[in-house]
Amino acid sequence: MIDLISLGKNAKIASAQLNKLSDEKRNAVLVGVAKALRENADYIMQENTVDIQACVKKGVSDAFIDRLKLTDKVIEGMAVGLEQVAQLESPLGKTVYSYKNKEQGIDVKKITAPFGVIGIIYESRPNVTADAFALCFKTANAVILKGGSDSLRSNVAIAKVIKGALSNAGVDPNAICVIEDTSRQTTTEFMKLNQYVDLLIPRGSASLIKTAVENSTIPIIETGSGNCHVYVDKSANAQMASEIIFNAKTQRYSVCNACESIVIHKDELSALTIIAEKLKEKQVEIRADERAYQTLSGYPYLLYATEEDFYTEYGSAKISVKTVDSLEQAIAHINEHSTHHSESIVTENKENATKFINEIDSSSVYHNASTRFTDGFVFGLGAEIGISTQKMHARGPMGLDALVTWKYIITGNGAVRK
Amino acid sequence: MIDLISLGKNAKIASAQLNKLSDEKRNAVLVGVAKALRENADYIMQENTVDIQACVKKGVSDAFIDRLKLTDKVIEGMAVGLEQVAQLESPLGKTVYSYKNKEQGIDVKKITAPFGVIGIIYESRPNVTADAFALCFKTANAVILKGGSDSLRSNVAIAKVIKGALSNAGVDPNAICVIEDTSRQTTTEFMKLNQYVDLLIPRGSASLIKTAVENSTIPIIETGSGNCHVYVDKSANAQMASEIIFNAKTQRYSVCNACESIVIHKDELSALTIIAEKLKEKQVEIRADERAYQTLSGYPYLLYATEEDFYTEYGSAKISVKTVDSLEQAIAHINEHSTHHSESIVTENKENATKFINEIDSSSVYHNASTRFTDGFVFGLGAEIGISTQKMHARGPMGLDALVTWKYIITGNGAVRK
Repeated sequence: MIDLISLGKNAKIASAQLNKLSDEKRNAVLVGVAKALRENADYIMQENTVDIQACVKKGVSDAFIDRLKLTDKVIEGMAVGLEQVAQLESPLGKTVYSYKNKEQGIDVKKITAPFGVIGIIYESRPNVTADAFALCFKTANAVILKGGSDSLRSNVAIAKVIKGALSNAGVDPNAICVIEDTSRQTTTEFMKLNQYVDLLIPRGSASLIKTAVENSTIPIIETGSGNCHVYVDKSANAQMASEIIFNAKTQRYSVCNACESIVIHKDELSALTIIAEKLKEKQVEIRADERAYQTLSGYPYLLYATEEDFYTEYGSAKISVKTVDSLEQAIAHINEHSTHHSESIVTENKENATKFINEIDSSSVYHNASTRFTDGFVFGLGAEIGISTQKMHARGPMGLDALVTWKYIITGNGAVRK
Repeated sequence: MIDLISLGKNAKIASAQLNKLSDEKRNAVLVGVAKALRENADYIMQENTVDIQACVKKGVSDAFIDRLKLTDKVIEGMAVGLEQVAQLESPLGKTVYSYKNKEQGIDVKKITAPFGVIGIIYESRPNVTADAFALCFKTANAVILKGGSDSLRSNVAIAKVIKGALSNAGVDPNAICVIEDTSRQTTTEFMKLNQYVDLLIPRGSASLIKTAVENSTIPIIETGSGNCHVYVDKSANAQMASEIIFNAKTQRYSVCNACESIVIHKDELSALTIIAEKLKEKQVEIRADERAYQTLSGYPYLLYATEEDFYTEYGSAKISVKTVDSLEQAIAHINEHSTHHSESIVTENKENATKFINEIDSSSVYHNASTRFTDGFVFGLGAEIGISTQKMHARGPMGLDALVTWKYIITGNGAVRK
């Protein structure tokens, strides 16, 4: 068992130092870390190779290896990411509210401030190690990282290079800590380290998020699980619907903002054939309810949908179809089955679009656009640490703003409450 | 066992209706509820009397009865509170961010939106039933209330009157739900009702908050536990320090922003006699560490402090004293022992004040002022639902702003991601 208490304490101590550094200093350190990553790319790739060899032996999928693999290009991407974060405006120390209470003789100011220590739990994508560090360091938060076991050596190698660069810059290397024990027991204990960890962000699959929701006593932000819908309304432009759905489903299968389910008005079922014609190009399997199935008979990759399909984030070339009798039914179906990530309505009827936008309970609601846009860069927020699917603190793409809290500062001259 | 699932489902349905009402309608309903409370004051007081009689039989303290008792004046206060909330500006539907992504052909807007259903767990203070309803209804959130068992009849009576007023106004009465089963098992199940409850706010003692932190899978905001400190720095004005501490400790003992501990620089121990002289007026018991004890020998209500004292929120005429060698030690002691609510430094040294403000990890940090000011009205925020001592979503006094989340709205004209 790893000593999580000491790890937490050390991260907390480091966070206090980060808070005292100037923005300029923090930015310079980020640039220094980028340089160190480039200089040590060979070492990082060597360690990564050991992880990959172990995974190949285990017989994992090519997609898994693809996410795990650190090439020169991926490491260069990490370095550029660090430099980009250094360029962003700092969200710290902003006055977001001020109030002069003359009667009581006090000045009240609310300013943005670091959380302190942020914990991140993620799967075997080692580039997250550098990306998450960059965003946390920029916001003067120390970070404790718990990555997937299959990428442990890679994560440790990246963290070692970062720690070296921090030390060279006179910064406490515990600003980044990697939990080297990836056992379930340690992960569960980590989720209860409230004394030292101020915020926990689980990134990854629905089951990882569920484990965090059920076990963490640290406040968490749920991210990334995306069972996204496109609703084809009665008065949709069928051609537009087919292009939006084709893009939302097939542009990238594994991402959380991909469309997993088509909801279609019964009077618009004819559009479904146009949509299917397009999806056929990529051999997308369609899992349809009764009415949609009848409409699509003859489509080469057609199955009946089960209720479970409507709860499933496929992450692959599959999509479900639900036929509804009304806009109200569409909204109810989506609110019941979605993960509250991103949903879109295709319609020429503005009133229906407004109703959909108001009543759909998701982080990002679209009108006549692909769900694939839910992304920090696309929304103009810059680098993101994840897409929040919950409502507290942050919703949708989480940029630097999501990594700060606030503090009230009150000054008086001997003021006492009357 | 009460059927929490149905209760949650009904509250969720009501919340969808609330979201469709106009601000004007919601405000008019709040005024109608105030009228109904006044008209039914006798009924509410009758039911309250039954609660009180049961408590008197159990032999609870006078302070407990005092918080439980609903008089004409308390009910009038509840009604006026509702009318005041109706007057406040709505925090809903505000655009907090907008961005035009020309390259991708989309308009992005981030607006404030209701949470949906908010759960509140509180102790036997029936006025909270109306106050919490008002703030939640104003922000188009349905509320599920779980009050203390000793005030159950009072809470149910208040909710019944509110439900009647809602029905009369054509509003779903499930906008307010009271859990009538106050057993621990039901409370624990309530804390796991994620499917229907979007946010849980526990209000009350440290043990209630702890139970919620450990058991809730719903995102929670911790509130109200306040082990607040006043630090008397080396260069403090001793007279000012004594007045601030006297106010912070004795103006009201039971409140969460009262001072529970004095931290004093060793070179300023002489100020402690002046401070104690003032505290003697109210017979405040002082629990002092060795150095402070020596300084105060002869004070009539003097005891040695144990380590436990430094973690204790007395809520009564008791205060602890810790002597430190430096500002750094004061900051470390406070960050270790406080509940991160409100802390104050008394000093004439601006540099020390800045250091204290930057490094103290609490929601509200004061310079030369009493901690008693941490309050929504005093900070200019209006009515509050509690004082958040955590960092996510809300910190310090939580006004209407804390009861809304956000939603991204993205519009295109067939936009697909490139």
